Amino acid sequence: MSKPKILLQLDSDVQASVFDGVVAVDAGVDQLFRHSGVQVSQVRDLAYGAMFTRGVDDLQYTAIFVGGSDVAAGEAILTQVRRTFFGPMRVSVMLDSNGANTTAAAAVLSAAKHCPLADAEALVLAATGPVGSRVVRLLALEGARVKAASRNRARAETICKSVAAQCPGANLTAVETNSPAQNQAALETAQIVIAAGAPGVELLSTAARASGKNLLVAIDLSAVPPLGLAGIEATDKGAERDGMACYGAIGIGGTKMKIHKAAIRQLFEAHDQVLDAEEIYRIAQRIAG
Amino acid sequence: MSKPKILLQLDSDVQASVFDGVVAVDAGVDQLFRHSGVQVSQVRDLAYGAMFTRGVDDLQYTAIFVGGSDVAAGEAILTQVRRTFFGPMRVSVMLDSNGANTTAAAAVLSAAKHCPLADAEALVLAATGPVGSRVVRLLALEGARVKAASRNRARAETICKSVAAQCPGANLTAVETNSPAQNQAALETAQIVIAAGAPGVELLSTAARASGKNLLVAIDLSAVPPLGLAGIEATDKGAERDGMACYGAIGIGGTKMKIHKAAIRQLFEAHDQVLDAEEIYRIAQRIAG
Amino acid sequence: MSKPKILLQLDSDVQASVFDGVVAVDAGVDQLFRHSGVQVSQVRDLAYGAMFTRGVDDLQYTAIFVGGSDVAAGEAILTQVRRTFFGPMRVSVMLDSNGANTTAAAAVLSAAKHCPLADAEALVLAATGPVGSRVVRLLALEGARVKAASRNRARAETICKSVAAQCPGANLTAVETNSPAQNQAALETAQIVIAAGAPGVELLSTAARASGKNLLVAIDLSAVPPLGLAGIEATDKGAERDGMACYGAIGIGGTKMKIHKAAIRQLFEAHDQVLDAEEIYRIAQRIAG
Repeated sequence: MSKPKILLQLDSDVQASVFDGVVAVDAGVDQLFRHSGVQVSQVRDLAYGAMFTRGVDDLQYTAIFVGGSDVAAGEAILTQVRRTFFGPMRVSVMLDSNGANTTAAAAVLSAAKHCPLADAEALVLAATGPVGSRVVRLLALEGARVKAASRNRARAETICKSVAAQCPGANLTAVETNSPAQNQAALETAQIVIAAGAPGVELLSTAARASGKNLLVAIDLSAVPPLGLAGIEATDKGAERDGMACYGAIGIGGTKMKIHKAAIRQLFEAHDQVLDAEEIYRIAQRIAG
Repeated sequence: MSKPKILLQLDSDVQASVFDGVVAVDAGVDQLFRHSGVQVSQVRDLAYGAMFTRGVDDLQYTAIFVGGSDVAAGEAILTQVRRTFFGPMRVSVMLDSNGANTTAAAAVLSAAKHCPLADAEALVLAATGPVGSRVVRLLALEGARVKAASRNRARAETICKSVAAQCPGANLTAVETNSPAQNQAALETAQIVIAAGAPGVELLSTAARASGKNLLVAIDLSAVPPLGLAGIEATDKGAERDGMACYGAIGIGGTKMKIHKAAIRQLFEAHDQVLDAEEIYRIAQRIAG
Repeated sequence: MSKPKILLQLDSDVQASVFDGVVAVDAGVDQLFRHSGVQVSQVRDLAYGAMFTRGVDDLQYTAIFVGGSDVAAGEAILTQVRRTFFGPMRVSVMLDSNGANTTAAAAVLSAAKHCPLADAEALVLAATGPVGSRVVRLLALEGARVKAASRNRARAETICKSVAAQCPGANLTAVETNSPAQNQAALETAQIVIAAGAPGVELLSTAARASGKNLLVAIDLSAVPPLGLAGIEATDKGAERDGMACYGAIGIGGTKMKIHKAAIRQLFEAHDQVLDAEEIYRIAQRIAG
């Protein structure tokens, strides 16, 4: 007989995310244990409470969600959760701090609708942040030639090295985009451009974007205007502009939400899953059919 | 198909109110998200989580309750919640910090049982606090001639101006009650007296109250003895004393609780309600039949 | 008609125990109100919320669980909860900070399987801590001759005085166990030895334990190696070693969990129960048949 589904929400912020809580409820969680201000030093005892209460056969009915606005803090919590597990004593765990994994998965899935990723060249602007680096990972995983761009070449190279270490065989190029000329050169041969920059910072003017003659799809992941890719609306969901399909943050929001719910549901199908960027992208592909 | 009812409890105290939580459960809330120590700067992200998760058609199944012992803090949270809403992106919200709105509604409803408010003169003692000022507002709204009393005339005048701004046409008089003679003069023509003072402070002696020859009903809202109106028991619920119907804090507690539950239930009937003193009084009138 | 079962979890730690939360859910609690960092000064208002919301006839559907890693803090919270109650205005409350009560009950119940307690002599090592002192109380309550041992004689005497005050007629002896010779003397005539020491501290070598010629059962309550009683495994559950039945912390874990769940269930059978060591031991006996 199945037990009530308990989700342990470990959130690094002072107030635990309401967004993540509502999604968990709508994904069928029966009891939500919400913890705010979670620090790495507290994780072991919290995870023990999930591991040592229901017996090995029922471990799949308890799971852990790691969230909060700080992706680095969430990654540290996830690492500590995994360190606490041993042998069969483990529960499934998902990381989605700042929505980084579900957003990256929704963006790459949207790009794939317009362009087979294995044959594509993709430019990722602001590739060094938590969402951007995940977009780079997922595109590389799918076989795309990825240009990871940053205004700072050294940071672009760091992210390429980091992704290369995780994805052997990835086709990655670090690109500096610090001038209109550099932007134009980076866009020249790309079929896909995805902007993952900070809110309110324009990364590409409308003219610059339109100059990308090979572009099939342009995706902007910032919800606060001005958007990173000028001329795109936050609500765009495949809207054709300047000959390319455009997506804004709200436009991919529905897809992101479906992925988030499906990932929460999958947590309770076995007791040993770790859902980070790649695993969440696989879930996204499955529900997209 | 309806979704689970989620109530976001935003509480300004270090520990979120258990009282408000139990009432919410008994009013049919399925999932309660309890947040303590809530500061205005945190409200936007919390409200976004309620607004942006379930889609416009399902917004009515998520609502916000603002509570805590500090009514001014609750009012600031409510203001920020309302500022965060835009267009159809809003959920219903109720304010009942320190039980101020449900208490004021229960007191005025109890008074109305003994005396048509539109024809009455009412004296509100300690009218400058959060409960007292709400009692003044509700009585004025119902057409009563209201004497708002304080030991400090300037504060009484401030509250009258504030209520007059909210209720055009209100019949309000600021009264100083700093001596037995002033008390007696204030009581002379009143049919209703309601005391909303601090716990443990007597505002009127038994003799002074009995000197109110026109009094039909006397209500004391303090639960901690000595009560504000001497001679009344906290458990009084319409008990006749000195020729008038008397109510104490516990005596109106049952009515207050029914109002509180009805207000929580109403939150989930539409997605755009704001339940403050006046709206909660309308609910009180409706359930009183 | 019964109401949803609400359990108020008052936890003294920065993060409320997940372990206690999961057990509560699995014991049938419908709504869990989890409070962390609870201080004695906050208890009155929290308890009022449980007492004053549902009416006297429904008080049994709300209960309080006091937990956290600090047993002394939990005891202070329990004391304050009980002080807040008056007359019929009370809800049932259980203390199990650090699992002290359920662990002590499980240990004594396990010992009783191998040796009638009323005829036995029991040695309790590290008897001065919160678990050890509860084991002493329960053994004394059942009529055993109890040697309460500590490396510090004065502390052993303090615990004996304290237990004697609670259990008139208890047969208690304070014992200093600061050398192999003292250990051997203490073990000479004991049928039962229970070690309740700090994690990772060996209290008795294998040879010393084997020298207890009358020992029928040896129980170690530390889950972190090295265990207090050398030669015992944490997973032992009645394993015979050196002619005696041995139990480790994990071995009694299943019994402890059953007791914990049964105690939570019992909280909701009446509104006036206080479940501390003795009451929880009675529940343990009942479910053991």
